[in-house]
Amino acid sequence: MTLLAKTIKRIEPLDEEAMAKARERLEQLTMPYWALGRLMDLALELAGMTRSVRPEVENRTVVIMAGDHGVVDQGVSKYPREVTAQMVRNFINGGAGISAMARVADAEVVVVDMGVASDLDHLVEQGLLISRKARPGTFDMSVGPAMTREEAAQSVEAGIELALELADTTQIFGTGDMGIGNTTPSSAIVASITGSDPKEVTGRGTGIDDEQLTHKIEVIERSLHVNKPDPRDPLDVLAKVGGFEIGGIAGLILGAASARRPVVIDGFISTAGALIAHGLHPMAADYMIAAHLSVERGHRIALDYLGKKPLMQLDLRLGEGTGAALAMTLVEAAYRILTEVATFEEAAVSTAEGS
Amino acid sequence: MTLLAKTIKRIEPLDEEAMAKARERLEQLTMPYWALGRLMDLALELAGMTRSVRPEVENRTVVIMAGDHGVVDQGVSKYPREVTAQMVRNFINGGAGISAMARVADAEVVVVDMGVASDLDHLVEQGLLISRKARPGTFDMSVGPAMTREEAAQSVEAGIELALELADTTQIFGTGDMGIGNTTPSSAIVASITGSDPKEVTGRGTGIDDEQLTHKIEVIERSLHVNKPDPRDPLDVLAKVGGFEIGGIAGLILGAASARRPVVIDGFISTAGALIAHGLHPMAADYMIAAHLSVERGHRIALDYLGKKPLMQLDLRLGEGTGAALAMTLVEAAYRILTEVATFEEAAVSTAEGS
Repeated sequence: MTLLAKTIKRIEPLDEEAMAKARERLEQLTMPYWALGRLMDLALELAGMTRSVRPEVENRTVVIMAGDHGVVDQGVSKYPREVTAQMVRNFINGGAGISAMARVADAEVVVVDMGVASDLDHLVEQGLLISRKARPGTFDMSVGPAMTREEAAQSVEAGIELALELADTTQIFGTGDMGIGNTTPSSAIVASITGSDPKEVTGRGTGIDDEQLTHKIEVIERSLHVNKPDPRDPLDVLAKVGGFEIGGIAGLILGAASARRPVVIDGFISTAGALIAHGLHPMAADYMIAAHLSVERGHRIALDYLGKKPLMQLDLRLGEGTGAALAMTLVEAAYRILTEVATFEEAAVSTAEGS
Repeated sequence: MTLLAKTIKRIEPLDEEAMAKARERLEQLTMPYWALGRLMDLALELAGMTRSVRPEVENRTVVIMAGDHGVVDQGVSKYPREVTAQMVRNFINGGAGISAMARVADAEVVVVDMGVASDLDHLVEQGLLISRKARPGTFDMSVGPAMTREEAAQSVEAGIELALELADTTQIFGTGDMGIGNTTPSSAIVASITGSDPKEVTGRGTGIDDEQLTHKIEVIERSLHVNKPDPRDPLDVLAKVGGFEIGGIAGLILGAASARRPVVIDGFISTAGALIAHGLHPMAADYMIAAHLSVERGHRIALDYLGKKPLMQLDLRLGEGTGAALAMTLVEAAYRILTEVATFEEAAVSTAEGS
């Protein structure tokens, strides 16, 4: 049995007993019923995911999957391809958006080269970068498949392996991405899997203008037409219109779910990875926490498809795991509500109606 | 000149120079233009409030103003009056919702007795509680003014004094409240100042049913009819249909603004206090950061009136400063974006169009 098949088999439903116990405690806390709203919903889910009424979330890791995209040759991004590698260095040097946001959340940042189109061996040798590089960038999906089916499976399994290795020191995962041009394959994935018109799920990425957006939509339509990905076969979708980092994200989610670790999903690209993970095993969605609703058009459609309601809406459109890192503070809040707030009885506070 | 008049005079507009410098840096950060959205807006505002491109926000204090309400005699709340004092003890013992949320944000919690209807002297003597107690609870506003105009001014000045004292050790303030029944005066304040129908701005507070809600609206309508507060005179509104803790919150905001300290506004009751502060000096709103949109009906109308867009929407309805504490993590994020993220030049990252 493949690692992917084994991992899928290991994913179990949320633990109803832990959730029932958590609910019982949450309902007795010294506050009006469910007065901390969605944070209490999240506390319940954490209990279910971790099988514990003390769902520890202190050790946090944001994993940034990086990869390049052949389709950038079609002029779908404002930025040149080499920015992917430059940003990898920026992550490692601690100067990127995610570097700052991870400090807010007291999270570790792990950077993975899933398929960057630059030689980053020196960083790997120094132990600063993990390499699971498939190839220096995908093929141009507008003329044929972005990768082979084997490569798609390997990118997902690389993500699984990383999740399982990191699970020893990680209580909560966050997903992150870096890859110039990667809103284009992400929109193609979302269009394919949710059955949406590419127009409805294609946005401005790093900030293209109207003309470039029209062109980007055409490229996505062409990619879908040329490749005809089968939406019921997530590895086929990933191979034909995906990316190595997107496969890595899908694997990270599956691995986290199999290890009963909550995984905070960042923005649009991460959610495209989440759609692949969900396609491989719908129950993986039970372990996902949607961090925020991105500016990127199509994110809401993808989250709705997964049945996930984002925790924040801050007009973010950076990726890198920035939204996931921020949302980890809300996950900590949920944990503290469940474990640190006194019950009416413990605090000798009168309940409603003076009873 | 009174402390209130002096304080109002000291409030200055946001510093345009600091904001321009902050904007210049934010536009050069290694990310697409304004890709961290509202957090970058917030970073700009912080620079303007603090007159600095390094708007330190490390020392954080949530001030919980507590007070009781005569109008509770009319049966407007699900909980008995003594819960106010019981919750004050819970805050001090660290077992309340705010205790847990303050730990998430690494914030200090200061509790102030503005007018609790219980003897809490022993806590004051032990240095665990600050007393600015006007009286053990307001009068029943449904039969006459909740307090005298002098008491209203004193409650605001008490808040100002506290802000000025705490400003030495506080770089960012959060507002909090505790007072059984205090959504009732808050709704009356919002109705009066924004000119809204009480029906539109009255919610379920701690969780009353339909019948109790109808009754609560009637009590608010009666209070406004009996007292006829003058919406252009915020001290008149506070005196007639307010509360001691709401006056304290208004004062805290004015004091913070005069000391150029950002102040994170919690939920509905805090926003009622913010309306009083804004009425006394509209420029106080420049120093307010709206933490979240509460479940409480009327909160959106009050925030719109102040021109404030909430950072979060998590279905919170607890008060105590819980939302304010959580939002402090986003304020920290804004600070870190402005001060820790590298520019394209610093990180040697290519800019858009490969230029």
